[in-house]
Amino acid sequence: MARRIAAVLIDLSGTIHIEDAAIPGAIQALKKLRSSNVKIKFVTNTTKESKRVLHDRLVRIGFTIDKEEIFTSLSAAHRLIESRKLRPYMLIADAAKEEFQDIDTKDPNAVLVGLAPECFDYEHMTKAMRILLDGAPLIAIHKSRYYKRQDGLAIGPGAFVTGLEYSTGCKAEVVGKPESSFFHTALEELGCSASEAVMIGDDVRDDVCGAMKAGLQGVLVRTGKYRPGDETNAEPRPTFIAEDFTHAVDYIMENYLRMV
Amino acid sequence: MARRIAAVLIDLSGTIHIEDAAIPGAIQALKKLRSSNVKIKFVTNTTKESKRVLHDRLVRIGFTIDKEEIFTSLSAAHRLIESRKLRPYMLIADAAKEEFQDIDTKDPNAVLVGLAPECFDYEHMTKAMRILLDGAPLIAIHKSRYYKRQDGLAIGPGAFVTGLEYSTGCKAEVVGKPESSFFHTALEELGCSASEAVMIGDDVRDDVCGAMKAGLQGVLVRTGKYRPGDETNAEPRPTFIAEDFTHAVDYIMENYLRMV
Repeated sequence: MARRIAAVLIDLSGTIHIEDAAIPGAIQALKKLRSSNVKIKFVTNTTKESKRVLHDRLVRIGFTIDKEEIFTSLSAAHRLIESRKLRPYMLIADAAKEEFQDIDTKDPNAVLVGLAPECFDYEHMTKAMRILLDGAPLIAIHKSRYYKRQDGLAIGPGAFVTGLEYSTGCKAEVVGKPESSFFHTALEELGCSASEAVMIGDDVRDDVCGAMKAGLQGVLVRTGKYRPGDETNAEPRPTFIAEDFTHAVDYIMENYLRMV
Repeated sequence: MARRIAAVLIDLSGTIHIEDAAIPGAIQALKKLRSSNVKIKFVTNTTKESKRVLHDRLVRIGFTIDKEEIFTSLSAAHRLIESRKLRPYMLIADAAKEEFQDIDTKDPNAVLVGLAPECFDYEHMTKAMRILLDGAPLIAIHKSRYYKRQDGLAIGPGAFVTGLEYSTGCKAEVVGKPESSFFHTALEELGCSASEAVMIGDDVRDDVCGAMKAGLQGVLVRTGKYRPGDETNAEPRPTFIAEDFTHAVDYIMENYLRMV
């Protein structure tokens, strides 16, 4: 199956860092991957933070990353909201709101949900429900079940999106991973096709299966939110399961990027 | 279809009262129904309040109701928890906790969810999720989509239960309406069978369809959480649709309780 690829998409949280700590070896492994001149994009559903905040953190941790290399589900959401002239009621983290500064939010005709611990309370959920019951669309930045925090697993926005779907009978439009459109838009920015790309991530559904359904190769890492057995029920099965990001990079360089 | 019945089950919130106000005419209509000597039970998923608190409120509003006539989903939950020796992490309102004072909650091995606006925040949901991911059962007092508050519709515990199911992959055991076991237990306390009983409520799914699937007749009232068109997708269709509780009582007395 070994073949040459042109682009590597890399998840952030749980794959190369957890909050303010790098995954051991990830800073060096990224440098090694860059030495191959493969195109790289960091694709993330981390909606707690704008691209700027995210970039600041990664640089502070010690990664060599350009801001334009980061592709987030917030950017995808912004594009959708703008194109449909929606005025969203936003359940998103304060830090993420700066990406939507140009969007009119008065008299809401849509609900936008990201990972927003400070908004996931009863009154915010009730207000969102009322807007949806009036027929407004529900846009989910992503539907993650949970994510890895330094103190353990923390619940994802998917729980609250699903709850709003249940109470209103509507179906959310998801813009982030694992939607195929998300991976394709990220690859467009690199000028590559799905068949030339591989995705590395810790979330078997959102990163690996999502990417594989979109036509990419998928490498699962056993860090971050990974739990033993995650791969057992995965459909399709990951192309490769790596111990961590370093192992994933070694596998990719050996199998896809070696000069022959 | 007219036939004699022996028991009337009556929903509380939205059917005979909304918060601290009686539905207009309901106090008199209940007196009129009592004059027929039919057996009456008030069956409720209102988990914000213990049976005592609920009873105090109804009496304060002006209803003539005996505390023992009230059958709540909290009692049903208590029975289940006790019989299975569960130690629940409880997302239930403070006022409801008095019904569980005798239950051990240390080192939780289950999650119990009711309507608990003050607990439906990110950290409570995260803690519940972690317990469930360890394999503990999820007990839902009910799965209401929303309920009627004086300022409009407010989101129901069903949203949060569904969210926990989504993030953990588990399936909640529901003890309240619309579960058939709930209606049957309420009728057992009256010594009646389902075929001898009619249920009146404002929730087409939880009250009316739930009761009808359990073998009762079902009368829907257009008050409380009722929204025009609710009956259109109901399966089975309500036996009768009444403007309000007074109209429902008139219908029942005329069709089921008239001396012939």
